[in-house]
Amino acid sequence: MKAAVLHAPGQIRVVDAPDPMIQEPSDALVRVLLCCLCGSDLHPYRSRSTAPVGKWMGHEFVGVIEETGADVARLRRGDVVIAPFGWSDGTCDRCRDGLPSSCRRGGFWGASGAPGAQAEAVRVPLADGTLVKAPVTEHSALLPSLLTLCDVFGTGHHAAVKGGVGPDAVVTVVGDGAVGLLAVLSCRLLGASRIILMGRHRPRTALGVEFGATDVVVERGQEGIERVMDLTRGAGSRVVIEAVGSLPAYEQALGIVRPGGVISRVGLPQYDEAPVGLRMFVPNITLTGGTAQVRAYIEHLLPSVLDGVVDPGRVFDRTLALDDAAAAYRAMDTRASLKVLLKP
Amino acid sequence: MKAAVLHAPGQIRVVDAPDPMIQEPSDALVRVLLCCLCGSDLHPYRSRSTAPVGKWMGHEFVGVIEETGADVARLRRGDVVIAPFGWSDGTCDRCRDGLPSSCRRGGFWGASGAPGAQAEAVRVPLADGTLVKAPVTEHSALLPSLLTLCDVFGTGHHAAVKGGVGPDAVVTVVGDGAVGLLAVLSCRLLGASRIILMGRHRPRTALGVEFGATDVVVERGQEGIERVMDLTRGAGSRVVIEAVGSLPAYEQALGIVRPGGVISRVGLPQYDEAPVGLRMFVPNITLTGGTAQVRAYIEHLLPSVLDGVVDPGRVFDRTLALDDAAAAYRAMDTRASLKVLLKP
Repeated sequence: MKAAVLHAPGQIRVVDAPDPMIQEPSDALVRVLLCCLCGSDLHPYRSRSTAPVGKWMGHEFVGVIEETGADVARLRRGDVVIAPFGWSDGTCDRCRDGLPSSCRRGGFWGASGAPGAQAEAVRVPLADGTLVKAPVTEHSALLPSLLTLCDVFGTGHHAAVKGGVGPDAVVTVVGDGAVGLLAVLSCRLLGASRIILMGRHRPRTALGVEFGATDVVVERGQEGIERVMDLTRGAGSRVVIEAVGSLPAYEQALGIVRPGGVISRVGLPQYDEAPVGLRMFVPNITLTGGTAQVRAYIEHLLPSVLDGVVDPGRVFDRTLALDDAAAAYRAMDTRASLKVLLKP
Repeated sequence: MKAAVLHAPGQIRVVDAPDPMIQEPSDALVRVLLCCLCGSDLHPYRSRSTAPVGKWMGHEFVGVIEETGADVARLRRGDVVIAPFGWSDGTCDRCRDGLPSSCRRGGFWGASGAPGAQAEAVRVPLADGTLVKAPVTEHSALLPSLLTLCDVFGTGHHAAVKGGVGPDAVVTVVGDGAVGLLAVLSCRLLGASRIILMGRHRPRTALGVEFGATDVVVERGQEGIERVMDLTRGAGSRVVIEAVGSLPAYEQALGIVRPGGVISRVGLPQYDEAPVGLRMFVPNITLTGGTAQVRAYIEHLLPSVLDGVVDPGRVFDRTLALDDAAAAYRAMDTRASLKVLLKP
């Protein structure tokens, strides 16, 4: 089968890879209908020093069950399924605790030695715990929106949940990438009354406004901080969602959060250490968030997609064939595209 | 009047200071009955490079109202009062938000250019918002326990509250100083079912057990982490209270907190940056806590002291005259004493 691989930093190739096969009785084989690129795929792509050459790429896919192992009880051939970005058994103490991304038997596609999801097919371990059946056909127009449940919509939702967003919340979202925009949408679904979006890419912030942002701040750094302070009458934002993962974005969040407030992070941190001393301690700032528990949110968010209440698939602004994965990476790397859909 | 001042790093002198006077109509003058030393007083005392020479020391005191300004309505001469470690108006948006330590008109004794509380008398700004009347006489045996409401008991309580401690919680407290021990007591009051205390000073951990610790871990570093893992059957602690403020204590907390758990800090951080990257992000660890909102807790905790349900004053293991402040600092600096009471 075809699969995208990181040949060298900045070089993606679609290669002939071994067809996946059932290895364990809890496995399922999924033929990929749609997959896509994530902001986090760009980290190894851009890395000039530490990119693991030969790394399989991608961790988001919807597909059709082709075959199931002997122990798989909840799924059968022909089911259209949504796969979270990692597998989990659904039964360990951590899964029961709402932490499937920390599952004791879990792992992640394109990591943990597993192939990636930018491919024609994927072997899914612990299929009963991992996959969620979607009540649609493989020709459904909803597939792109269902695909966002694999990672980016669930990650935006996670940011809002961990930030404690509820009715009438005032939230600032730092970052106008797909995660930031879907954090905006999630905040709206949770009843936030004011959603300030910080971003400088006009078409993206325009989509953010359609998703529910009430204010857009294009300024960055100290100017951006002052702008948010003005918008909140000097109080700052009680909840700040940091949807980038860079140190400047973290600093931005720290600058605009109000005393007693929360910074909820969902951008994969590109730093090891950051300021958490007196600047955070004295005003009682809480730092929370982390790897999203996307598996735990799929059933919760699915009805809003099926009912057409939301259309998170709008974050995809380009569709390419899997064969054109290299062009897809270039488009996202140069910000020519917000998020690229790949069709095997 | 007499007051303790930092003459030079490691040198405390009790000097003749100007008698405080009413300056604003919202002021009160308080004659100090009891004051004490805090772990945070040792930071400038120990500093070999940056100690502000001439700094007034101390921020914990109970006393008697001697005089009130024209606008003070809730207090009168002769009232025994408890003073939180800083003043606050009780009316600004932050005070109303439960954040008196971030009061827009607030400040802290021994900082903000204000004299300290290791003195015979203190001018209290914003007296109506700041002071809490205690229904006792100035000869009450409860005064030491009431004095803990100024800072150390409220700070322990803050750690537990911010950590989300409730009935049946499993908590680990890092640090057997007075704050750590009173965090143990606070966790017990909030219904925690298991309280693991990490500390290696036998008389302190023994008091911790009397306060409610169910387990004591004397090991530190990797050994201490493994011990807590064993005690929690490999799961780690859902809530970790970090009551020291050092980077090794932070690392200890990070090592024993379970995925999805909370580190609640109340020790004044002696670091600016700390590890908050993937190590914290991937397992969804929340970092919270900060300067305690002691003013907000005094009325809440006061009944338990007045009723004798708790005896937090047991953290004082030595009483000296204010004149002997230098000896008091030496005793705490060398760990000969846990916490020293000073009588003006």
